[in-house]
Amino acid sequence: MNFQDIDFNIAKLFAKSCRLSALQAVVNANSGHPGGSFSSLDFLSVLYLSRLIHSNEKIVVSNGHISPAVYAVLAELKLEDKQDFIENFRQSGSKFEGHVNRFVNGCFYSTGPLGSGVAAALGMALAEKYFKTNKKVFAVLGDGECQEGIVYEMGHFANKYNLDNFVCLVDYNKVQLSDSLKKTMPIDLEANFKAMGFEVLTCNGHDHQEILNIYQTADKSTKPTVVLMQTIMGKGSKVMQLDGENYQATWHGKSPSPQAAQEDFEFLKLSDSQKSELANHINQLDIKINSQVDFPSKINVGENRVYTKDDLLDCRTAYGNALKDLGELNPEILALTADLSGSVKTNILQKSKPNQHFEVGIAEQFMVAAAGGLSLAGAIPFASTFGVFMTSRARGQARLNDINETNVKMVSTHCGLSLGEDGPTHQALDDFASMESLFNTTVIEPADPNQTDHVIRYIAKTKGNFYVRLGRHKYPVLTDKNQNPIFSGSYLFDPLTPTCVQKGDKLTVLTLGSTSFEAQQACLNYSDQVELLITPTLDSAKSKEVLDSLKKTKNLLIIQDHNSGAGLATFLAPYLLENSIVIENFKSLGVEKYQLSGKQKDLYALNQIDKEGISKQIDLILGKL
Amino acid sequence: MNFQDIDFNIAKLFAKSCRLSALQAVVNANSGHPGGSFSSLDFLSVLYLSRLIHSNEKIVVSNGHISPAVYAVLAELKLEDKQDFIENFRQSGSKFEGHVNRFVNGCFYSTGPLGSGVAAALGMALAEKYFKTNKKVFAVLGDGECQEGIVYEMGHFANKYNLDNFVCLVDYNKVQLSDSLKKTMPIDLEANFKAMGFEVLTCNGHDHQEILNIYQTADKSTKPTVVLMQTIMGKGSKVMQLDGENYQATWHGKSPSPQAAQEDFEFLKLSDSQKSELANHINQLDIKINSQVDFPSKINVGENRVYTKDDLLDCRTAYGNALKDLGELNPEILALTADLSGSVKTNILQKSKPNQHFEVGIAEQFMVAAAGGLSLAGAIPFASTFGVFMTSRARGQARLNDINETNVKMVSTHCGLSLGEDGPTHQALDDFASMESLFNTTVIEPADPNQTDHVIRYIAKTKGNFYVRLGRHKYPVLTDKNQNPIFSGSYLFDPLTPTCVQKGDKLTVLTLGSTSFEAQQACLNYSDQVELLITPTLDSAKSKEVLDSLKKTKNLLIIQDHNSGAGLATFLAPYLLENSIVIENFKSLGVEKYQLSGKQKDLYALNQIDKEGISKQIDLILGKL
Repeated sequence: MNFQDIDFNIAKLFAKSCRLSALQAVVNANSGHPGGSFSSLDFLSVLYLSRLIHSNEKIVVSNGHISPAVYAVLAELKLEDKQDFIENFRQSGSKFEGHVNRFVNGCFYSTGPLGSGVAAALGMALAEKYFKTNKKVFAVLGDGECQEGIVYEMGHFANKYNLDNFVCLVDYNKVQLSDSLKKTMPIDLEANFKAMGFEVLTCNGHDHQEILNIYQTADKSTKPTVVLMQTIMGKGSKVMQLDGENYQATWHGKSPSPQAAQEDFEFLKLSDSQKSELANHINQLDIKINSQVDFPSKINVGENRVYTKDDLLDCRTAYGNALKDLGELNPEILALTADLSGSVKTNILQKSKPNQHFEVGIAEQFMVAAAGGLSLAGAIPFASTFGVFMTSRARGQARLNDINETNVKMVSTHCGLSLGEDGPTHQALDDFASMESLFNTTVIEPADPNQTDHVIRYIAKTKGNFYVRLGRHKYPVLTDKNQNPIFSGSYLFDPLTPTCVQKGDKLTVLTLGSTSFEAQQACLNYSDQVELLITPTLDSAKSKEVLDSLKKTKNLLIIQDHNSGAGLATFLAPYLLENSIVIENFKSLGVEKYQLSGKQKDLYALNQIDKEGISKQIDLILGKL
Repeated sequence: MNFQDIDFNIAKLFAKSCRLSALQAVVNANSGHPGGSFSSLDFLSVLYLSRLIHSNEKIVVSNGHISPAVYAVLAELKLEDKQDFIENFRQSGSKFEGHVNRFVNGCFYSTGPLGSGVAAALGMALAEKYFKTNKKVFAVLGDGECQEGIVYEMGHFANKYNLDNFVCLVDYNKVQLSDSLKKTMPIDLEANFKAMGFEVLTCNGHDHQEILNIYQTADKSTKPTVVLMQTIMGKGSKVMQLDGENYQATWHGKSPSPQAAQEDFEFLKLSDSQKSELANHINQLDIKINSQVDFPSKINVGENRVYTKDDLLDCRTAYGNALKDLGELNPEILALTADLSGSVKTNILQKSKPNQHFEVGIAEQFMVAAAGGLSLAGAIPFASTFGVFMTSRARGQARLNDINETNVKMVSTHCGLSLGEDGPTHQALDDFASMESLFNTTVIEPADPNQTDHVIRYIAKTKGNFYVRLGRHKYPVLTDKNQNPIFSGSYLFDPLTPTCVQKGDKLTVLTLGSTSFEAQQACLNYSDQVELLITPTLDSAKSKEVLDSLKKTKNLLIIQDHNSGAGLATFLAPYLLENSIVIENFKSLGVEKYQLSGKQKDLYALNQIDKEGISKQIDLILGKL
């Protein structure tokens, strides 16, 4: 797919008409970002007309606040209703959100938090390469956006994998929200992109001929490419352009008054003949843009592995094994890791299918954003690092994927005190809390290697974002009275169903993850009295099984290798109150402050989440009855 | 303060002895990172001996996993007990954590999550400049660490403010955890640092004379400076060096076996005469290193401003006003913002005291980390951005400050649906959830401009990390029956004390922040029946006042402009269960999914957290009684 010649007269009318509707929408909403919308509309118009309308290639507008420009282009191309956009932009109930919304036709990724969109776009470019589609991916960035660190993580990855199908367009208007770029944060864009290994091109971002030429040059580049589009904020507006020329930030994020805008409305209006010329042209186009995502549906999950009672292994190895199986069966399954492949066990897949494993370097933010992009381009990415990095360093990107309803499998290892000796900076004790409040991400913590195997295969085939929490240390597989593995044989993982490991009528013990083994050992001495339920997800804590148990016992002990004041306890407690479940004794066992370094065993004992500590709590509660 | 000449024979013995104790500690723990510890010990030894022991300047070892090297140096200098370090490194209960721990004598910032330490160090360098101490600040980075995006945010800031008192030392051993730098993520360090505007120097990182020379060159630099220390992973070890020379990652994060290490133990052992030579030298030194932090204690909080019933303003303006007052009275009060000074209202201080206001560009991670560093160097930083960026993008840095027990005031604006038209990417609906699980950060949401004024002055004078959540929209100040402002006059803010706004005996309504006004309006119609309590912090929800109210009413309605399944409801519910407080009706009103763009008023109505929605819920609950 090449850039095609365009009728520059049409492009001029197109850009002008887009400026009009963008401004009408902003003025109508009395809110929005007209300045950058106007500075980017020339190079956007040329890009769409010369290429995107024919190629159906992906574009991510990473500086999502220029949504008026994006929506205006898509409306001009009749992918969306122009009147709807103008009237309802930024109004309650409209999909024409303040920042670019993936659920508008022609938008490939919802953006807003700066830097994350371009990282997602690079994930898409990687997918196009991987699937050998021969397609390019385009990203638009603000110049100020290049101050976000994730942009550099992105750039280094583009260079490492030489993603020459990736073209960034920087709207280099030299003005950001507060002030000029120079006063706010002067950075040398050319030097920075060159240092990352990009081909750096420069262009007058308002000269359509020059823009098309530079696109054709960029098209031939054998490296990832950035075009610094020299633009003027508010270009083409009688009200805004002068301030833009003087690097004033006046119109970055503010609407002109309806009165002031009137002059522009007149100036930007096409004559009737121009209107029909443009309309005729657009009507004749065979526009191929389609941003609908078809997530892979036919995933072969293979056969569950079975770990027996004599196996002593960590859940992360069970994850690595399952991932290898899945990867071998499904080319869509890809693994990403941030310099921890041996620790998070994606190296097992890496060994078997090196082309399905991507090392992003120490760049967790980029990893999670790129996974979002990969997932919207047909891959099923498993992104892995330690829990603390996934849910703190990369939380912004996980949240943006959450909003984008992507299909990312975040599998974290070394969570909780199971981490061992690395100390508090590496102890994910707050990762449930970080992730459980995201509306579209399911949080899971499997209890042993067998359940891990089930969970990994389940999330591979199930559309959506998942956060899977795994510990680091090894322990035996969970078995029933007959020494058979509990999470094997006829076991089927379901995120809403807990597993009752022991029946009892006085106290319900609820746990998940690596405290399950400790809890089981503790509960054994209280058969018939203590009911032990393992809830692999926070959601399954609200299941009928748990409620029925609680109605019977009226006493609840929660155990988790996590901040005791968050996670399972806080997820369940409001629900119990809301449903008037009477609880006579309630105790949440977990970790109450940062712990120093130490062996997992010592740390569990210190925090009373080992067999002995749990037994003590059970005694305390039973003693009260 | 200059670099002083050193006795190179002593430096050699010093480095050798440090290598021995570092290795002994790692082998004893059977855990840790010996490779990078060995590669960095030469330039660390020279740095301490020629400068830091005399100057008491700050150093942050940002690649915190080389803690064995750091602790070994500090133990060799007798700032810590060497035997204690060797025997208890990474053991439960010891402060000699796996990653550099600020609470070890001579450590200035706890590190581990890569990139954040060097950003905190730059914050310290900014403080030294601001307070005109004429001191430099040093930071050590791993080469792989330079893949983290925050490093670029840091670099651009160093350049903008020309922090020529900042010297970075990169341990350029070209090996990272998984593999060589080249295979893991090839980056051109020299080009990248030059692009950021650094003076870039290169040096053989094992030649003590060359190291001292380069330090003396760096000392004269008029720009922020980085020295690329060309080193070999495992240098100086019979077991490890050869792998390091071949760029093998074998010893990045693994201990040699005691047997294998024996050869090194012999090789690295000083003779008795060498030992006494070194000991004599060290005993004669007047070591000035002191990492104890004296947080500012005498803060003049000035007079509270009073907003009256006719004032209609947003809490963020009240924040900006209070910050201006505080800044004018106290030079330690500094403001940081990430290209949002006009939105977060730090521009009010900026106008009055431009030197106390720092614009970091669009770089929230750096802002929060740098605030941590500033606070450990005597400043009281207020860092402000939108809630969604503070608690997602910068969560990793907020968490690291939390572990460091810094003195950072994070004040976020535009939280919740109060944000208005910017849409879901900018709606902080999960920020309580993100922050409440951090063990050492207090979360506050003031209810109106008067309470905001009290809160800002309170956190300025109170040591510790705070997260203050503010909305965007304007509403009247809260007043009592006599139209007097509730949070004024004799009101004193206390984080553990809620305010009872209306008495009643049938239903307790609990709220905070911008839903307080809506709740008050709704409750007015139910006097004597509904008790309204405003809890400015999550902690105050657990106060005696709230429990007494609930014991009386047995019914609870929680209202917040936040994910209803997190925040206040989840914080309080487990506590109620644990304390056997019987609740007959419990309802948590809030936001249940991402909302599209819209006016605040429309969004509140849609989610039933406006006066009408709240009234409806009150009716529902009272109807059941």
